[in-house]
This record gives sequence, structure tokens and C-alpha cells, in this order.
Amino acid sequence: MSSNRVTGPEIETLIQLLAKLPGLGPRSARRAALHLIKKKDQILRPLANAASDAAEKVSECEECGNVDTANPCTICTDVRRDISTIVVVEDVVDLWALERAKAVNCLYHVLGGTLSPLDGIGPEDLTIDALINRVSKPLVQYSSEDPKQREVILAVNATVEGQTTAHYITDRLEGLDVKITRLAHGVPVGGELDYLDEGTLSAAIKSRSNF
Amino acid sequence: MSSNRVTGPEIETLIQLLAKLPGLGPRSARRAALHLIKKKDQILRPLANAASDAAEKVSECEECGNVDTANPCTICTDVRRDISTIVVVEDVVDLWALERAKAVNCLYHVLGGTLSPLDGIGPEDLTIDALINRVSKPLVQYSSEDPKQREVILAVNATVEGQTTAHYITDRLEGLDVKITRLAHGVPVGGELDYLDEGTLSAAIKSRSNF
Repeated sequence: MSSNRVTGPEIETLIQLLAKLPGLGPRSARRAALHLIKKKDQILRPLANAASDAAEKVSECEECGNVDTANPCTICTDVRRDISTIVVVEDVVDLWALERAKAVNCLYHVLGGTLSPLDGIGPEDLTIDALINRVSKPLVQYSSEDPKQREVILAVNATVEGQTTAHYITDRLEGLDVKITRLAHGVPVGGELDYLDEGTLSAAIKSRSNF
Repeated sequence: MSSNRVTGPEIETLIQLLAKLPGLGPRSARRAALHLIKKKDQILRPLANAASDAAEKVSECEECGNVDTANPCTICTDVRRDISTIVVVEDVVDLWALERAKAVNCLYHVLGGTLSPLDGIGPEDLTIDALINRVSKPLVQYSSEDPKQREVILAVNATVEGQTTAHYITDRLEGLDVKITRLAHGVPVGGELDYLDEGTLSAAIKSRSNF
């Protein structure tokens, strides 16, 4: 029995849509729907407006794949950013994470996932061609007297799929005048050694620096 | 840095509202928002419509506290239900759970929480007075030749707060012609003894029945 025997179809629709969100199962979707209905003016109506607003105004940046109300996005058109460096990330959430950390002040490129032959995801399903195109363009903003080399930072996740994708991109970028770097592996700041896996610990020892 | 430096305020608003839902923290709210934006036509727009629909049409039943598009709700006006029995639950999610299980076919009364002196929640914050009123009314539907006794099933959670509330309600119902029952304690169907707490096992032994 679905809950629409005892409630209206409106609640049932709301529950079913909420259950499609990552992180919400059927039970938490029901609780979330009920919470929304109880807080009609504080959350439910604002959410309806925010969702409809976002649906109208937000789109994917055709340059980098970020989501924004502007296209090209605020980052791509930000003149204070170092345009010679492109940070390659798997997903927009990773871009957001790096921006929250103020880790870099340059451009991004969102791949839209990782290579995964088993799931049938090949290079054509990601934005790798677009990345090669972007990197191939000359950096016109820099004069020929003071040329600047491009850098591509491969900020993919430290997973097998992420690293495979990084290797593939490195191969594709061969021959272009671009410096390719990757994120450092090591002990997370605040991390305790006892809780870390062997791979991380080995990497941290291998990449140790002078104190 | 909030993510609205790199995205529009529309996305930021959406994230902040989603983060208010039970079960979603800041990180999962960001992922959920991104998921919505990526699936604009499949989820985001329908969610906007469903939320606005629910905000307009759904309200709390003034009789039992259920949420529904009808007021009194579909359950209170359902003539096929046994109106002599009222199941008292803490929250609407509990009502939904009992309905999904088709456990009973009678009326409900949603308390809106449990007594909790530490949190400053007293009887006046729950719908206990309304319950007493409902139970005090004569069951006019039954003829005087075939009178029927009212029953109140206390289907509160098996927590300290739930049981305290059940005891309080029992005291308040004293003197009224009503049979008061509570849910059975025991081994959950499909449950393994090894995973159950001592209280449940003791209750299951105490309430054992003939095989």
C-alpha cells in the first residue's frame, strides 16, 4: 500500500520526487515530505520557488561545464583569475569543494564523470575533447615577450577510475605545450595515522618533505 | 566561502533549503541540488510543481492531525472504518507506517510529539485535550441496543518519552468508558535473537504464547 490511500496524490508525488535525490531513501523521503508540509511557509513554499527559479535560470557553462546562471559562467569570465591554469575535476561538486577551500584561483574543466569501460563510459561521454580544444588554443592574453606556459592540474578523485581517467588525459595532451600536474597524496590535515590506509601512508612517506 | 561566489544565488538558496530537510546535511544538500539541476526536466521542475501544489492543497486534519488535501481527512471521513477505535500515534509518519502495514482499519489521533519536560514540551503542546474530547463524545453510530465500547490503542514509540506519554494519557482517560491498549513488545518478525537488546528479549519471553 502506498501512502496515497490516506493522503492526497500531491504528498505522494512529493515523496516520490524527494526519494530520487541522492542520500534520501524511501523512509527519509517520507520524513522530508512531512517536514516540508509542516513548515509550509518556512521551507515548502520557498523550496517551490527556489526550484522553479533554478530550473529557469541555471544552466551548464558551455566552456567549462560548471553550473551557473551566467553562460559562460562567472568563473570563466572572471578577469582576476589565472587563465593559464585549468583544474580538471570529475564533477561540479569537486569544483565547489576547491572553491570553498580557496585552493586555486584559476579556471576549471568539469569532465562529467570518469572513464569506466564496465559501465560503458568512454572518452566520448566525457568532455575530454573540449578540454583538448581549450588547451590547444594559444594564450593570447600573454604577450609574446612574456609568454606563459599552460598548466593542467588533474584534480580527479584518488580512485582507480579517477586515476585511469587522469592517465588517459595525460596521453591525449601529449605534444601540446602544457605542464600537467596532479594533486599531492598524503596525510589529510588533522588526520590520524592510525585511521589511514596503507596506500596513503606509503604515499605520505614517499613524498615527505624537509621539516 | 559559500558556493554563491561561483554559482548564482538561485543554487545557493536551493542548497540552503535542501539542507533544512531531515536526513540531508550540507554536503548531501549540495549533491542533491546539483542532481536536481542536472535533471531539470525529470526532477527539478516536477519538484517545483509538486512543492507548490502541496503548499496550496495540503493541510492538517482538524479532527485527527493527519495531513491531507481534505479536511477532515480521508481517514476520518472513511465510512468503512471502525470509528469506535482510535490509534494514538506520535507523528504522521507513524500513521503512514501503520497504514502501509494495513495493521488496523480504524481512526487515528496524531499527538504531534511526546511529553518531554527537559525540552519544555508539556501536555498543552500536544493534542491530548483534543483526544480526550474525541473519546468523551458518545458513539452515536451505534444503537443503544447494540452499544460498542470505545478503544484507544496507544501506538507510541517504545521509548522512554513515548511510554511516559502513554502513561499520562492513560491517567487522563480515567473515568471514561474506554478500553486502553498498547502495542505488543517482542521479537520483530524476521528478527534474529542475537541482534536484539535485553529489554526486547525479556518482553518476548514474558509475553510468550502457546505454540
